[in-house]
Amino acid sequence: MRFISYSAGTVPGVAISQDGRYRGLPVPSLGGDLQSFLGRPGELAGLTDRLSTAPEISLDAVTLLPPVTRPGKILCIGLNYRAHSAESGFEVPTYPTVFARFANGTVAHGAPLVRPKVSDLFDYECELAVVIGARGRHIDIDRALDHVAGYAAFNDGSVRDFQMKSPQWTMGKAFDDTGAFGPELVTPEELPPGCRGLRIRTILNGEVLQEADTADMIFDVATLVSTLSEAMTLEPGDVIVTGTPDGVGALRDPQVWLKPGDEVTIDIEQVGTLTNPVVQEGDR
Amino acid sequence: MRFISYSAGTVPGVAISQDGRYRGLPVPSLGGDLQSFLGRPGELAGLTDRLSTAPEISLDAVTLLPPVTRPGKILCIGLNYRAHSAESGFEVPTYPTVFARFANGTVAHGAPLVRPKVSDLFDYECELAVVIGARGRHIDIDRALDHVAGYAAFNDGSVRDFQMKSPQWTMGKAFDDTGAFGPELVTPEELPPGCRGLRIRTILNGEVLQEADTADMIFDVATLVSTLSEAMTLEPGDVIVTGTPDGVGALRDPQVWLKPGDEVTIDIEQVGTLTNPVVQEGDR
Repeated sequence: MRFISYSAGTVPGVAISQDGRYRGLPVPSLGGDLQSFLGRPGELAGLTDRLSTAPEISLDAVTLLPPVTRPGKILCIGLNYRAHSAESGFEVPTYPTVFARFANGTVAHGAPLVRPKVSDLFDYECELAVVIGARGRHIDIDRALDHVAGYAAFNDGSVRDFQMKSPQWTMGKAFDDTGAFGPELVTPEELPPGCRGLRIRTILNGEVLQEADTADMIFDVATLVSTLSEAMTLEPGDVIVTGTPDGVGALRDPQVWLKPGDEVTIDIEQVGTLTNPVVQEGDR
Repeated sequence: MRFISYSAGTVPGVAISQDGRYRGLPVPSLGGDLQSFLGRPGELAGLTDRLSTAPEISLDAVTLLPPVTRPGKILCIGLNYRAHSAESGFEVPTYPTVFARFANGTVAHGAPLVRPKVSDLFDYECELAVVIGARGRHIDIDRALDHVAGYAAFNDGSVRDFQMKSPQWTMGKAFDDTGAFGPELVTPEELPPGCRGLRIRTILNGEVLQEADTADMIFDVATLVSTLSEAMTLEPGDVIVTGTPDGVGALRDPQVWLKPGDEVTIDIEQVGTLTNPVVQEGDR
């Protein structure tokens, strides 16, 4: 199953994607948005049944939203690919590096990513996002994947000088409209277990700048779910953004920075293609 | 004005505190919780008027909630008192150090703080919390305090070994039920501008372990609001937790760790007294 969240005028909706066609219904008639269907077993299957006979919608007539619009937590993993950890000057980590993003920082597929007026050092990061379905704490690694509702592409856009102004990276990850998430939430049965072995890439204006295999993650999806849940209850709609491989703009020679007029795509095999234009703050 | 959020059975409510008495109404009859009244000018004054004639409630008959129960962001400032920055081995910062907490990590006044089963290194941190009222981005420092709805005490409880397992502190701040927030949201007209010049203390089992003056903050409230809003839109209900002074348990000689049976109080002059028992995970 592949779902999108959208807005038609001011009314949000949920659609299912089948064979390149979208069938959707407004949230008020569904009784909840996509996030509200994630937590309970069988709910997504029931939603699929309802949407499979819904009216066809045209993507040109709606505005896409991130698959999950009000995540309780966005937990980002740093340094989770060996080559990126090395290019960043860190040892191979023995424990996940976790930082947060906030909902204000995330836009949908197709929406502008905004280079802020206070910095020109705006960078891309291709990442696999994991959306939690079943609530849990102290989740055993062998059952961790049962807690995953689905996967999506994520661009963990970063304002590098603000990321490095203090020992904690949060400010560089918190700028409005600097990350992207979507377009589709893809449920696990469509994908290899834990989303392993899929090609993940960043493509900037047609040029491939990052390319890796999700199997190269140091901490795989099951390990991340289990490890995070040692500390905190994971809730439906929580998002784990699993880290980026090598090739980020800041660490290339010469450096590459996102600038107005650019088009940046995060492409994850079988999961989706997330494309956003880059604009300058104030120029929208 | 001094507000509390509470739950009577399963029904949430909001009360006003006047001369040691509380007058409250259920959220369904108010049309929203305390957070929903923060963003619009005059709304808190209108809420005060309604509550001033409401029935008196007994704190023994209700369960307190954190003043704001669903903050969009909890933005914590590290190393914001000179002596604590020094005891932590950092230079005096020239830019705020920002990290996140999540709502799962925060309990109300009186509720147990939970020492997790995976660590005995559970520490306290007394902090002043700032709750945002008016939405804003690029907020001028001269008008920053106009965006503050009120203040409360906060215990930024920290699991120190998990905080230091990676370059980012998030995991040590993310454990369920390890922070505390409240009891009251105190509006700015009750307090000195920017809450400057107030004594802030941690008292563990009757012994004062941290004591400082909020005027010792390196980045004061107006500076924090303005600086954070350079990056992100601040929204009603967002919380800025402004950092702790020296005297945390991890950096004392001998070290002091919170353990089951302890009672820890954060006391901020004129703002409030936040007291919580400590329990062991699984023993509730």
